[in-house]
Amino acid sequence: MKSISELQEIFNRYLAKQSFEKQPKELYEPFNYILSLGGKRMRPTMVLLGCEMFSHDAEKALPQSMAVELFHNFSLIHDDIMDNAPKRRGQSTVHEKYNSNSAILSGDSMLVYAYEYLIKNSGGSIEKLIQLFNKTAMEVCEGQQWDMNFENENAVSVSQYLKMIELKTAVLLGCAMKMGAIVGEANEEDAQRLYEVGKKLGIAFQLQDDILDSFGDEKKFGKQTGGDIIQNKKTLLLIEAMEKANPEQRNQLANWLEKKTFDPKEKVKAIMDLYYELNIRDVAETEMLKYYEDAMLTLDEIDIPEISKTGLRSFAKSLLDRES
Amino acid sequence: MKSISELQEIFNRYLAKQSFEKQPKELYEPFNYILSLGGKRMRPTMVLLGCEMFSHDAEKALPQSMAVELFHNFSLIHDDIMDNAPKRRGQSTVHEKYNSNSAILSGDSMLVYAYEYLIKNSGGSIEKLIQLFNKTAMEVCEGQQWDMNFENENAVSVSQYLKMIELKTAVLLGCAMKMGAIVGEANEEDAQRLYEVGKKLGIAFQLQDDILDSFGDEKKFGKQTGGDIIQNKKTLLLIEAMEKANPEQRNQLANWLEKKTFDPKEKVKAIMDLYYELNIRDVAETEMLKYYEDAMLTLDEIDIPEISKTGLRSFAKSLLDRES
Repeated sequence: MKSISELQEIFNRYLAKQSFEKQPKELYEPFNYILSLGGKRMRPTMVLLGCEMFSHDAEKALPQSMAVELFHNFSLIHDDIMDNAPKRRGQSTVHEKYNSNSAILSGDSMLVYAYEYLIKNSGGSIEKLIQLFNKTAMEVCEGQQWDMNFENENAVSVSQYLKMIELKTAVLLGCAMKMGAIVGEANEEDAQRLYEVGKKLGIAFQLQDDILDSFGDEKKFGKQTGGDIIQNKKTLLLIEAMEKANPEQRNQLANWLEKKTFDPKEKVKAIMDLYYELNIRDVAETEMLKYYEDAMLTLDEIDIPEISKTGLRSFAKSLLDRES
Repeated sequence: MKSISELQEIFNRYLAKQSFEKQPKELYEPFNYILSLGGKRMRPTMVLLGCEMFSHDAEKALPQSMAVELFHNFSLIHDDIMDNAPKRRGQSTVHEKYNSNSAILSGDSMLVYAYEYLIKNSGGSIEKLIQLFNKTAMEVCEGQQWDMNFENENAVSVSQYLKMIELKTAVLLGCAMKMGAIVGEANEEDAQRLYEVGKKLGIAFQLQDDILDSFGDEKKFGKQTGGDIIQNKKTLLLIEAMEKANPEQRNQLANWLEKKTFDPKEKVKAIMDLYYELNIRDVAETEMLKYYEDAMLTLDEIDIPEISKTGLRSFAKSLLDRES
């Protein structure tokens, strides 16, 4: 079994060999730009891992790992336009560096390229892979739309929030793992189990992101904490706080949410104080652990040797223990 | 052999049965909206025609005809954002009726749905269909990027312009015809010939559009003529006029192109006067007829009974003779 860092390395070597030096350069430069921004390459690594677990031949799934990375980057480019985000991984977003039109059109082409990689060397699995990918892509779009809708809604429930992050974030991780399993010739039941593992880990991963955005150590987190609080993002933390608050605390929260002008530091401190009073970190960590443990139980059911599961177990643990 | 209007009718009945009544409605309403705006349904009809020519069973290609129509509408939604266009077929564009974010995201989902229809009942042809579709989709994006680039360039040559419209418009018509041929089980050579026929007709079609935009009869054209002139669009007409103009005429043209404030009617009249002086309509019609005749020569080479070609011949002629 290859380790997670070996798989990451295999993907990065493959990525470095892909060329998008085509014309017109206005269309393809953003490909190279956003792919060069790095990131953890979590999704392509999960594709390779899924394949490795069933076949010990991760390389077979390299084109599909690239498909998932391209899809992820396409969605980042378009989401950043929609969210009006100036920065991504500490650098300018594509629409900031180039312009919105370039970002729309490069994103579109990147989605098409994802399909191009998806079918490479896919042999008899082509239809299964495309059906899984299509379903996932539609769900990711639906998740992004729900996320945008929630910005204008006052009452978002915990279950609505969990459904949104499942669609926007988690299904792509499930898809990545299952795609690897399909290329690695897992049987349908095990492939679907691995999908569930990936999806549950994806939800845990997003909840951990929410926790870190408020409770993270800025030095280790790599960016300013409190961003979600400043933007009134309806994360699990805020939703749970609203539900658990007594009338006075709810008033305080509501006042901060309504303020149009405020000192960001003051707002973050006030809301963090409420989070501490209400023990929100524990609530969120309990929820996150529930998904993590559920994922591990599903992993237990997969019919492969325990040794083939160790990579995923340590990967899952690293997602949880991370501080950035 | 079914007639063109029968094929259009078959497509419209199929389209009416497709449902996009899903949640979140902000994502799917624009699907229903833009598909309801109508249009000639030229591209899906070409898919059905391509299939009918080789199999006399056009219905087999209905999902693929829907894929092409969805792709076309996806590209209209995104192009309209990029071009800042308020109107499409006399109605509000998607980003005007909803907003830019909805238009970006609905367009993205529509592209994914195109792939979903593309693989329906595609049997052993799935890989061929996707490869053709991917190649075409990338070319269409490249064409749109060249078109945007040309807005900021002074010297666009005839051959650059022809290449741009080939990518932006014509390859999708070639793709539509070849997709039909593939589903209709044509051999590879004939399928490729039909691609060439569709592509050449696509170029002729776009040149006819350019001609109608300046020389069309407003009542029959259905919209104001002169739009391209007002916007300084570098169509074949303008490029040929710049090339054929004597120094004085070139000066007049250049002056009008540089003016930031002007009476639109006055500008259209002045440039049309130059087009008449330089016989530009003849030049453009000669170019268009060259592509049309070339398409018909390629059609001659396809190894099917002449009776199976009559539908396409009359369709091609109608594209040329149209006044709107």
